[in-house]
Amino acid sequence: MIDRKQCEELDRRDPLAGFRERFLLPEGIIYLDGNSLGALPKAVPARLGAVVAREWGEGLIRSWNAAQWIELPQRVGDKIAPLIGARAGEVVAADSTSVNLFKLLCAGLEIASSRRVILSERANFPTDVYVAAGVRDLLRQGHELRLVEREGLLAALDESIALLMLTQVDFRSGYRHDMAGLTAAAHRNGALTLWDLSHSAGAMPVELESSGVDLAVGCGYKYLNGGPGAPAYLYVRRTLQDRIRPPLSGWMGHREPFAFTTGYAPAKGIARNLCGTPPVLAMASLDAALDLWSEVDMSVLRAKSVALSELLIATVEERCAGLGLALASPREAEHRGSQVSFQHEQGYAVMQALIAAGVIGDFRAPDLIRFGLTPLYLRYVDIYDAALALAEILRERHWNRPEYLRRAAVT
Amino acid sequence: MIDRKQCEELDRRDPLAGFRERFLLPEGIIYLDGNSLGALPKAVPARLGAVVAREWGEGLIRSWNAAQWIELPQRVGDKIAPLIGARAGEVVAADSTSVNLFKLLCAGLEIASSRRVILSERANFPTDVYVAAGVRDLLRQGHELRLVEREGLLAALDESIALLMLTQVDFRSGYRHDMAGLTAAAHRNGALTLWDLSHSAGAMPVELESSGVDLAVGCGYKYLNGGPGAPAYLYVRRTLQDRIRPPLSGWMGHREPFAFTTGYAPAKGIARNLCGTPPVLAMASLDAALDLWSEVDMSVLRAKSVALSELLIATVEERCAGLGLALASPREAEHRGSQVSFQHEQGYAVMQALIAAGVIGDFRAPDLIRFGLTPLYLRYVDIYDAALALAEILRERHWNRPEYLRRAAVT
Repeated sequence: MIDRKQCEELDRRDPLAGFRERFLLPEGIIYLDGNSLGALPKAVPARLGAVVAREWGEGLIRSWNAAQWIELPQRVGDKIAPLIGARAGEVVAADSTSVNLFKLLCAGLEIASSRRVILSERANFPTDVYVAAGVRDLLRQGHELRLVEREGLLAALDESIALLMLTQVDFRSGYRHDMAGLTAAAHRNGALTLWDLSHSAGAMPVELESSGVDLAVGCGYKYLNGGPGAPAYLYVRRTLQDRIRPPLSGWMGHREPFAFTTGYAPAKGIARNLCGTPPVLAMASLDAALDLWSEVDMSVLRAKSVALSELLIATVEERCAGLGLALASPREAEHRGSQVSFQHEQGYAVMQALIAAGVIGDFRAPDLIRFGLTPLYLRYVDIYDAALALAEILRERHWNRPEYLRRAAVT
Repeated sequence: MIDRKQCEELDRRDPLAGFRERFLLPEGIIYLDGNSLGALPKAVPARLGAVVAREWGEGLIRSWNAAQWIELPQRVGDKIAPLIGARAGEVVAADSTSVNLFKLLCAGLEIASSRRVILSERANFPTDVYVAAGVRDLLRQGHELRLVEREGLLAALDESIALLMLTQVDFRSGYRHDMAGLTAAAHRNGALTLWDLSHSAGAMPVELESSGVDLAVGCGYKYLNGGPGAPAYLYVRRTLQDRIRPPLSGWMGHREPFAFTTGYAPAKGIARNLCGTPPVLAMASLDAALDLWSEVDMSVLRAKSVALSELLIATVEERCAGLGLALASPREAEHRGSQVSFQHEQGYAVMQALIAAGVIGDFRAPDLIRFGLTPLYLRYVDIYDAALALAEILRERHWNRPEYLRRAAVT
């Protein structure tokens, strides 16, 4: 049996241990939901306070120039770039993940003009599927959204496929796609690829450029810790950038937004993917949250993510054997992102009881309890303590209370 | 000649004078650019601080339910509704003005299916024109964007027009359209109307429902004081709401976002116009900024807006006669919004000199200096002092310096 002393020893040797102090974490809580909403970096409140009081309050409209608000989308994009294996000028922060996906779907379908099929997997994150179906229905140009099982993706890559649209890490199971392999296969078949990095960026090295990825989107509020509803980002491979015709052709993507000409002319490069006025407060929070990443070695981060995940699986399987839990994530680390999920018939109530006990993970219908493992602010002892708390809840059936069985609006 | 004492007396009698203290305004600055970026309401820093520290930092993911983050878009929408003559459930806060315009253009064109023309005026705010052209080019369904001169709008309302898309108040001149009259004319011709309220809402009573307006969008960061890049909003007349097919069909507009089903089913009512995860920090700032409006009588606000505008025109025309300025706004208050613009050959440099002198307005190409009059935080003496400062700059040619003549990125 793994014991707590072993975990304490792992924490002592953890090269990332110092990052925990860079976050403001609530007392008495073990937070295993950074894949839904990242914790609050200490740098954020001061930065946001200054942006509000000094830049907005004192600087007012002058801050668009003086505080360089106007460049925030590119500056934040350039900070995200090294986390996802991209270069400066290939990423821009803007809008929501769903809106960015819409933009790149429309633009990608136009580039792949003679092909008409968006290929994805049935288990893709629902909003990605909704947005793609929305594009198909809006354009009325004979496009098709073809959803197949994960195992059938390679076989489905035929000459009809315009775009392969996938999320790198599955939000339910944490299954991680072979991004480089699938991208190469798509390219061999003449298709573009559009990857959603929401559940991978900031939790592991992501290699867009070396994988040859064409287009990507991702979320600012999960592993990037940008705050609730933080701006999302998008990536366009450099050689494709000037072929993008922005469907959301707002002024911030214009070559000269402040010339106020009547005709739309897209900006050079990644900036044409901007649309409306950037959300400065939200963008500043994300910007401040991103600063600590310059000190993080992504391979060390991944090693800790794997170690935390293995520890969670091992401890839960030791302590919860026979209590109705089944691992719902891949057992091999190479096929996993940075989350571990388990099935339980009463998953919703179990998670409510666990949250009440101070261990926050989350629930995904119909029966998954899900734990996000964020190497920057989690300790090995947290994982150990969480597994023991879960074991107690299952053993004592603490989940079996009316208030845990009744579902809330957001689960 | 108007003198400062008269203005002081007007301030003493001003029923809205007390609202100035609800804003944090920089010392020594006269701020006449609230139509570009509203000033900082005192309520915002505390609210934002609490949302960051308590709701995000302590509450973490639980705040989607516990702090009701999930309802923010509707709650903020319901606070905006009375300012624009709408009812609760007809407005939702989301995305940017440009993105919202895109949504309603697509949805409106689909409803007006047999008609194919978007009618607007050539002088409309550029991003509105860009977005409409983008929709036309994206859909490839034979739509046309027809831009006419303002005077030709009524005559252009023929049976080909699907949508009349206009901004209620012109961003350059402050010209105010007859919203009710144009909407009635559009309806007589079987067209829908889509109004952009960015330069009117919060500066005067806007009467969407009694004017019969079908669709509208607006901006959160101008007269609503929501902060730089604040979330925008959109309005859909109640009887049209269930006919809207959202082109940006993201999960937050889904009937059951957290059921995570594969098929998209739009929510009932206004909520289907949501797309991605709401930007909680930005939304909280706007929410806090909106609270003071429940105490504002919009007809009193309008009366002060008109009085400030008349004072500005009169004082400038008295003090700057023969100095190269020409009024570029309508002279009749009924045709104006809440801004006054003047032409000057060296408008850019004049505005830079004025800003350096502590009077902040803005410049719009090619030659307009523009003053936004925000009745909640401006005093009559501010207007008087601004006019005198402008007169001195023109008289002494203070604008004629290299640093004022060189244009910055954002003007």
